[in-house]
Amino acid sequence: MNTDFSAHGEVDADGNRIITGFSNPLVKQVRSLREKKHRKRSGHFLAEGLRLLTEAREEGYVPVMLFMSDSRDEHPLVSALENAVRENDGQIIKTTREILSKMSGKDNPQTVLGVYRDHAINLNDIDRHRANIWLVAQSLRDPGNLGTILRTGDAVGAGGLILVDDCVDAFSVEAVRSSMGAIFTQKIVQAPWPEFLKWLRGGEGQLVGTSLNTDNDYQGVKYEAPTFLLIGNEAQGLPSDYETECDTLVKMPMMGKADSLNAAVATAVMAYEVLNQQRK
Amino acid sequence: MNTDFSAHGEVDADGNRIITGFSNPLVKQVRSLREKKHRKRSGHFLAEGLRLLTEAREEGYVPVMLFMSDSRDEHPLVSALENAVRENDGQIIKTTREILSKMSGKDNPQTVLGVYRDHAINLNDIDRHRANIWLVAQSLRDPGNLGTILRTGDAVGAGGLILVDDCVDAFSVEAVRSSMGAIFTQKIVQAPWPEFLKWLRGGEGQLVGTSLNTDNDYQGVKYEAPTFLLIGNEAQGLPSDYETECDTLVKMPMMGKADSLNAAVATAVMAYEVLNQQRK
Repeated sequence: MNTDFSAHGEVDADGNRIITGFSNPLVKQVRSLREKKHRKRSGHFLAEGLRLLTEAREEGYVPVMLFMSDSRDEHPLVSALENAVRENDGQIIKTTREILSKMSGKDNPQTVLGVYRDHAINLNDIDRHRANIWLVAQSLRDPGNLGTILRTGDAVGAGGLILVDDCVDAFSVEAVRSSMGAIFTQKIVQAPWPEFLKWLRGGEGQLVGTSLNTDNDYQGVKYEAPTFLLIGNEAQGLPSDYETECDTLVKMPMMGKADSLNAAVATAVMAYEVLNQQRK
Repeated sequence: MNTDFSAHGEVDADGNRIITGFSNPLVKQVRSLREKKHRKRSGHFLAEGLRLLTEAREEGYVPVMLFMSDSRDEHPLVSALENAVRENDGQIIKTTREILSKMSGKDNPQTVLGVYRDHAINLNDIDRHRANIWLVAQSLRDPGNLGTILRTGDAVGAGGLILVDDCVDAFSVEAVRSSMGAIFTQKIVQAPWPEFLKWLRGGEGQLVGTSLNTDNDYQGVKYEAPTFLLIGNEAQGLPSDYETECDTLVKMPMMGKADSLNAAVATAVMAYEVLNQQRK
């Protein structure tokens, strides 16, 4: 995305751009960020809603473009956002509810929408001792699960989420939304399995996988920080050669007919067990 | 749904109906079960996939109509399903992949689809001592969360899910799918709050709510069977007067910026704590 994109449209007394036409090229450009290929190409993603954008700001993330509904009410948090965008030489664009709806793909759009630079980092930029828990997902397919796992990561004080192999994009609109702000508090890394494994074994860390192929109860194992919790694909679970690489395989009790939990649920049950051991 | 619906279409050598036309009224009728009003009116719902339909059969639930793709492979579990449907005087209908796709609303339909009588029951039909854990959701909005909560309920050995106030329909296609079969293992009840409370207080049971308005750590409380875990709406949590009615309010540690977990995740973390206390 060319963030120097020169304005088509009016400018108001505060120097903010005003866009009222659906045909404005910026509308199409922003809307395209709902698709992965456009996010990858531009290195930007979308986040919506005053609460989310405020949490981002508090974590030091300021949008390069801030779209605001011309029908929104005055709010000190909106002013704080506007100030942060101006200080960062970002653009503020006032537009209609209908155009926000078009850009966000929702009938009922939030009154603010931000375009952010994506902040995926490399494994080597991670300080693994910064947190006691790290979440690692392998070939996760569902963006809602991914966002929910980020949210859980924030709750248990995890350092971040390492996406191994072909996971759904963490910066998709649905993942960002489900993360409830955790997309801005958790480090996001993507790496192929061999690269992750090499990095992991270059330092301390216990790799823990959940599996049906073990008798270890998840409460019978002592977790050592930093603990890396490995979550498999929703349908297949972990490949068996990935399980072999784990330091520990554990299982949760399953009292009913089913043999597995939802991936985000299993992650949370595991992550709270690790946290509970650490806080005792 | 009129399950005596007389056939338009051919009948094969086994007496099974064959439907090849999109305009067959049965296609429209089945497709309409994706909408709540039609489910309520007819008292039926849809479930898809051989695995799910097999789990249903093992729990004693047989579809009144079984749709099968004419391009599916032979499979002993399919034969078992067909036999069960015949024994119950249900209908077996062979159709095309395209029509299955239309009925299920998925580009990539499963090769079997069943129409089931919905099996919601009343509070007075519940034997609360049948299980140590019961899940209670209040104004839950997301069908994926509801299905995931059912799946977790199955895993922790819960008796069922009591839906209080205006919850999303447990028999929606998405909830059924997310439940991964638990829609057939868990009792499903819907009741207004005052009615639930009256029923609850007519017998034993500890009502536990998760809340920000308490200092009780969720691991510092002793749960007494039967434990009723009350989950609030995704956005609002529990109304304060509902919290007042709880025997115990607890909170989970939140180490990050967020003050809450996803509703299905919170339910699972709580439910596993209750189970873990009970199995010790």
